[in-house]
Amino acid sequence: MPELVTVPRGLAGVVVTDTTIGHVRGLEGFYHYRQYSAIDLAERRTLEDVWALLIDGALPAASLQEEIAPLRHIPPVVAAALPSIAAASSSVDPMGGLRAALAVAGLAAGAKPLYDTSPPERRSQAMRLCALTPSLLAALYRLRLGLEVVEPRDDLPHAANYLYMITGSVPAPTQVAAIEKYLIATVDHGFNASTFTARVIASTGADLYACIGGALGALSGPLHGGAPSRALDTLDAIGSLPRADAWLRERILSGDRIMGFGHPIYRTEDPRSRMLKGVAQSLGGPLVDFAVAVEARVLALLAELKPGRELHTNVEYYAGVVMELCGLPRAMFTPTFAASRVIGWCANVLEQAEDSKIIRPDSRYVGPPPPQPVPC
Amino acid sequence: MPELVTVPRGLAGVVVTDTTIGHVRGLEGFYHYRQYSAIDLAERRTLEDVWALLIDGALPAASLQEEIAPLRHIPPVVAAALPSIAAASSSVDPMGGLRAALAVAGLAAGAKPLYDTSPPERRSQAMRLCALTPSLLAALYRLRLGLEVVEPRDDLPHAANYLYMITGSVPAPTQVAAIEKYLIATVDHGFNASTFTARVIASTGADLYACIGGALGALSGPLHGGAPSRALDTLDAIGSLPRADAWLRERILSGDRIMGFGHPIYRTEDPRSRMLKGVAQSLGGPLVDFAVAVEARVLALLAELKPGRELHTNVEYYAGVVMELCGLPRAMFTPTFAASRVIGWCANVLEQAEDSKIIRPDSRYVGPPPPQPVPC
Repeated sequence: MPELVTVPRGLAGVVVTDTTIGHVRGLEGFYHYRQYSAIDLAERRTLEDVWALLIDGALPAASLQEEIAPLRHIPPVVAAALPSIAAASSSVDPMGGLRAALAVAGLAAGAKPLYDTSPPERRSQAMRLCALTPSLLAALYRLRLGLEVVEPRDDLPHAANYLYMITGSVPAPTQVAAIEKYLIATVDHGFNASTFTARVIASTGADLYACIGGALGALSGPLHGGAPSRALDTLDAIGSLPRADAWLRERILSGDRIMGFGHPIYRTEDPRSRMLKGVAQSLGGPLVDFAVAVEARVLALLAELKPGRELHTNVEYYAGVVMELCGLPRAMFTPTFAASRVIGWCANVLEQAEDSKIIRPDSRYVGPPPPQPVPC
Repeated sequence: MPELVTVPRGLAGVVVTDTTIGHVRGLEGFYHYRQYSAIDLAERRTLEDVWALLIDGALPAASLQEEIAPLRHIPPVVAAALPSIAAASSSVDPMGGLRAALAVAGLAAGAKPLYDTSPPERRSQAMRLCALTPSLLAALYRLRLGLEVVEPRDDLPHAANYLYMITGSVPAPTQVAAIEKYLIATVDHGFNASTFTARVIASTGADLYACIGGALGALSGPLHGGAPSRALDTLDAIGSLPRADAWLRERILSGDRIMGFGHPIYRTEDPRSRMLKGVAQSLGGPLVDFAVAVEARVLALLAELKPGRELHTNVEYYAGVVMELCGLPRAMFTPTFAASRVIGWCANVLEQAEDSKIIRPDSRYVGPPPPQPVPC
C-alpha cells in the first residue's frame, strides 16, 4: 500500500499524465491543440481538419469528410431504441438520452474493452463514435418534440450537417461559419473534469463507449459544461439594461455565482470567450449588444463590490449568444458542446490506452476508528 | 493557474478526499465500512442493514426491506426501453445494457443535478437507483435470452430476490446466504477507480445517474471489476490438475497476468478472497476442490519462478466459484458485482455532494512547443 500523499483540494495542479494532445495556459489566456493555438485553428481550418489533428496527431493532407459522412448514419438497431429513450425523457435536453443512446450504440458495435483492442481498432471505434454523436443528439431532440428524424446529408460538412439535422433546413453560411468556430474551439480544453473522467475509465481497460459515457455525465454537471443555457437565462432574467445593476448588485452582494463568469484555470479573459464575442458581434443584433453591455456592467460591479476578485466571462457566456443566433434551441447548448468535445475525449482515451497503469488514487478515512464490534 | 504537482503514477496514494465511508488497509489485509470490519458485517448482518450503514451512516434499528421492496419494480416507461436495449446487445453480458437502462431510468425519474438537490432528495434518488439496478440487470439478461422478465417479489429479501429474478426460481437458503455474503463484501472497497469516477462526476454537480453510469463504465474494465469470469475461464482453460503446472509455468514465464491473482492495494491475501474461499468450501464440490488446488499451484510456482513477487488471490478468484455454485451464469458475474457496488458508489456520491470543489487535476504537455503557425 502506497504512502498517502497530500495534494491541493480538487487535485488542482496535480499531474495525472504526460500528454501531447494539448494544454491550457491559464495565466496567459492561451490554449492549444498539439502545437497549434486552438483559436488560430478555429479561425483557419475546418472542423474535420482539427478532428484529424486530435485523433491522428497531425493536420491531414486531405479532408476526413469522405471517411466521416457514412459513419454519421444511425444503425437501425440503435435507431430502434431511440423512440423509447426519447419517450422516457421528461425534458427536451438530450444529454441523458445521449448517454443511453451511446451505450446502445456501443452494444450494437460490439465494442470491446480497450484492454483487448489494437490501436487501429480503437481509432476506428473513435471515428464512428464521434461521427454518430451529433446524429443521436439531433434525433433524440426531434423525437422528443414529435418531429421526424432528419437523416444526415453526406454532401454537407460536419458543422453544417449538424445544424441541418436539428433544424431540418440547410443553414446560412454565416451560421455554419459561426458554429464551426464554436465547435473547433470546444473540441478540447486541457485536463478538465470530463476529460479526466474519460481517462480514469480508460485506465481500467473498459471500452471506448464506457469512457465517453462517463465523460458525458461529467460534462452535464453545472460546474463543468452544464451551464451555457444558464448564462443566457441570466440575460433573460435581467431583462433590460436599466435593470442590470440592481439585479447584479443583489446577486454579487449575496455571494451568488453569476453564470457565464469565472473559470477554474483562466486568470485572464477566456480566449474562447474573446473569440466567440467577435463571432457574436459579426452576426450582430440586439441580443449581442445586450450581452456586451451586461458583461461590462458585471465587470464594473465586480471591481466595485469585490475588488481583487478578478472574474471574466468564460466560454459559456458568448457561446450561448452564438448558439442562439445560429438557431440552436437552448436545450441543445450543452449537447452541442458535447457534439464537439467527444473528439477531444476520444483523443484522450486513445492516448490513455497506451498506458497500462490504472488510475487509482486514495482517500483519508476520518470516521470513528475501526474495527468496532458489529452489534448482532 | 496552480503550480504543477508531480505525484506517483496512477495517483497511487494521492488523497483526493476525506471520507467516513470506509477504507482499505492493504498492508494489514483489512477493509472496513464506517467503523466496522466489512468481513464481520458480511458474517453477521443482512445486505439491507449494510445498505443502511453505507447510505445513512449507521446500522438501522429496523430493516430497510419495506422501503426497498417497492422501489425494485421497473417503471413502465423504463421497461418499454429494455427490449430494444437487449436487442442491440451482441452478448448476454448486461453491463453495457445497464448503462443504457440506468440512463433511461434517470430520464424517467427526472433526475436533477446534485447541484440543485437537497440531501433528502439525493438520498431518495440513491435508494431508488440501488433498488432498481438488480431488476434491470435481471430483466436485460432474460430478455437477451428470449425469456420472460421475472417481476421482483416484495416478500423476498434483496439477495434472494436477486437470484430469483435471474433464475426464475426461489433459491436454496445456502445459495442465498452465500451470495448475500458476496454482495455485502463487495458493497464498497476504498477509493477504487469506479468509486473515484463516481466522485469526479459528482464534483461537477451532475445528477446521480450520470455519476453511477460513469462508475459502471469503470467497473467494466478488465483491470478493475471486469474479470471474475476470466478467473473462472482460466480454471476451464487449465482443465484438470495434472495439466496445471505446465499451463501456469508457461504463462508465468512469459510474463502473462494470471486472472484472479494480484491486487493494486493488498500486499497480503485479499480478505474478501479468504472469506469467499470459506463460503465456497461450505458449499463444496469438485469445482471448489479444483480451485483450491490450482491456487496452491499458482502460489508455489510464483514462489519458484518469480521469487520476491508476492501475489495472492484477489476477490475475483473465489467470487467466480461462489457465483457459479449459486447458479449465476458467467455473464452475470461482473453485473452481480455491480448490483451491490452501486450502494457504495451512491454513498460516495452523497458524501461528495457535500463538497463544492470540482475535481480537476492537470496534465503535463510534452509535445512540440506551441504556438506553431497554422498552415493554410
